[in-house]
Amino acid sequence: MNANILIVKEGSITSPQGFVAGVTYAGIKKKAKAVLDLGILFSEVPCTAAALFTDNQIKAAPVLVSQKKVQSGHARAVIVNSGCANACTGEKGLADAERTAELAARALGIPPEDVLVASTGVIGVALPMPEVESGISKLALSVDSGHDLARAIMTTDTRPKEIAVSVKTGNVEYTIAGIAKGAGMIHPNMATMLSFLTTDAAVEKGYLKSALKAAVNDSFNMISVDGDTSTNDTIVILANGKAGNPPIDVGTEESRIFQQALNQVCLFLARSIARDGEGATRLIEVTVNGAASTGDARMAARTIVTSPLVKTAVHGCDPNWGRIIAAAGRSGAKVVEKLADVYIGDKCLLKSGMPLAFNKKEIADILNRSEVPIRVELNQGQGAAIAWGCDLSEEYVVINSEYTT
Amino acid sequence: MNANILIVKEGSITSPQGFVAGVTYAGIKKKAKAVLDLGILFSEVPCTAAALFTDNQIKAAPVLVSQKKVQSGHARAVIVNSGCANACTGEKGLADAERTAELAARALGIPPEDVLVASTGVIGVALPMPEVESGISKLALSVDSGHDLARAIMTTDTRPKEIAVSVKTGNVEYTIAGIAKGAGMIHPNMATMLSFLTTDAAVEKGYLKSALKAAVNDSFNMISVDGDTSTNDTIVILANGKAGNPPIDVGTEESRIFQQALNQVCLFLARSIARDGEGATRLIEVTVNGAASTGDARMAARTIVTSPLVKTAVHGCDPNWGRIIAAAGRSGAKVVEKLADVYIGDKCLLKSGMPLAFNKKEIADILNRSEVPIRVELNQGQGAAIAWGCDLSEEYVVINSEYTT
Repeated sequence: MNANILIVKEGSITSPQGFVAGVTYAGIKKKAKAVLDLGILFSEVPCTAAALFTDNQIKAAPVLVSQKKVQSGHARAVIVNSGCANACTGEKGLADAERTAELAARALGIPPEDVLVASTGVIGVALPMPEVESGISKLALSVDSGHDLARAIMTTDTRPKEIAVSVKTGNVEYTIAGIAKGAGMIHPNMATMLSFLTTDAAVEKGYLKSALKAAVNDSFNMISVDGDTSTNDTIVILANGKAGNPPIDVGTEESRIFQQALNQVCLFLARSIARDGEGATRLIEVTVNGAASTGDARMAARTIVTSPLVKTAVHGCDPNWGRIIAAAGRSGAKVVEKLADVYIGDKCLLKSGMPLAFNKKEIADILNRSEVPIRVELNQGQGAAIAWGCDLSEEYVVINSEYTT
Repeated sequence: MNANILIVKEGSITSPQGFVAGVTYAGIKKKAKAVLDLGILFSEVPCTAAALFTDNQIKAAPVLVSQKKVQSGHARAVIVNSGCANACTGEKGLADAERTAELAARALGIPPEDVLVASTGVIGVALPMPEVESGISKLALSVDSGHDLARAIMTTDTRPKEIAVSVKTGNVEYTIAGIAKGAGMIHPNMATMLSFLTTDAAVEKGYLKSALKAAVNDSFNMISVDGDTSTNDTIVILANGKAGNPPIDVGTEESRIFQQALNQVCLFLARSIARDGEGATRLIEVTVNGAASTGDARMAARTIVTSPLVKTAVHGCDPNWGRIIAAAGRSGAKVVEKLADVYIGDKCLLKSGMPLAFNKKEIADILNRSEVPIRVELNQGQGAAIAWGCDLSEEYVVINSEYTT
């Protein structure tokens, strides 16, 4: 089967048919620069739904509430706020998250079990419920508010992250779209990261969950900004079937194409989060090949991209490749020095454990690119993985030294 | 048995009887500010010896060479350079490390198998052997050079780290002394850290190794500057018996006292390394109590003290305690939100998973102390551990962006 997957120009989370969004400034963010802090995503018709959440043992109230709701495999709306994580807020936090979903459900005229809830912001502060309540009453739904929803979920993000792709295959045509926020507390295994995905394709709920897991595994789970996993990570996909295709199920040619398109959406959003890490000036892409296993390749790639010494070296355009192989060596992956090669861009700096002479200026120029490719060949086996991160700048420290105060 | 353990005023690595040191500038460090870069530690009589090394799979040549030599349980000297790690240097690196030991052995008139070797500095650069050779020929041994040896091993350290304690027990009197260097690539499980310890006590070689392991486990293995484990970590203890005591062996009252004194030396040096982390302005001490196991307590304490978000919050005196409990939650230790308490200093900010009101100014003042105490009570069991680290400042990024260039 021939399939075309094309990026939709000016696409947003509401590009798939039947999805609308609403946003407002409710007053949850206190700072003057805050413009939007509350948003809603809604499908005009019922959807199959799947979601993944943080693996931190400290889970925010909205995570616990949404986790329970989404077990049904159905949902139609997500209410989301920035500026307050509603984490470490005990029973009151849970009640507030439930209440937020109820208020949104009432406004939308749907049952509360169809409304998921997500929050991002400071930990340990209660949601200001009067502001949430009056904010929800102000939300006006529109197909034009997709771009605004991408903005409403931002915290220290410097730009919105959004994409839509259209899939044409046989006589079926559908769209998959997504938004994400990241910036800090970003680390493999779901970070302070919210991502919402929509599609007008009809998708079986069982398959939708496995497709989401597969896509997240090689995208959101392979990015790191600072090694800190958050309490609030949430990724949700809603599939409303408006495209009129027969529901896509596991093991079919259609599912292969759907997976490919979903991967593309997740990969774009994950890379966008890494590139826009707090204080970041560059995207770092670390490829590890020839590992003893895929698990080893993932460990090594993630450890390298998380290393503060690698990140500062990239920031300073310093060709200090020893930090790359040292990070691989402590990652837990099997590393044999005599077999290992290290590349920055296409330049080999370490071959079979021996340093090669190189032109410092040439390597510094590669490290100064907006995307910095680093590659380690372990020559142990067939395991391969790619991880994404960003450089570590003085600005990261400045941002994080004065977050709550 | 009554024992007195006293810190020796102005003590150095040569405070124990029979130890001398020599230092020089050999030209291994290229920068103008470099004063010393080569040093030797020597015992006038044979010693029992024990050592521990990095667990990074990429081990520097001097680590591989010393690891082999110290298996005998004996050594009399250590030759150490700063400015070049001699790591990722292949067969030539091994030959250079062996040759360095031979040159030192010849100068000292002892067999090369009695000389350990250690290096710290940039990875992937060969030792400049002509400089090493002429440097060794210039080394003049003296009991007065102990303080200088503490300086010769420094890289980005801002101050030397040294201590000597004297032990008086019954009619025996001996001294244990040590020096250490740290600053960057510092992480639990032996960091870019060199530490050399001496004692004039007589100690059985088998017991010496187990005593060293026990002391390091709760000191050097519980510190972190940046989460990066180095290729060169080495800690060596030489015991020359000059004090004339009957050799201390395992399971005796004397061993209990020796362990106590050795712990004190290692703890002081480890804390000094954490306090002097690259760019650090403050020491962070994280205590975790009530963990399900000691292993859990260690994991949680180390994860909290390594978290860039906790480190930047301390740097900015920002009472963002949510980052502390979030780090515990992702550490792998068992954490139940409803049972967890978080303290900064003696102020409880989270009690049984619920935030308590606090005075921001008061907490900011605690975070501004030169030593910042953070405590998490997990209320799961009896596991307890303490870890040390430092705040993360803009200066860390500056230092590490321009290390090799």
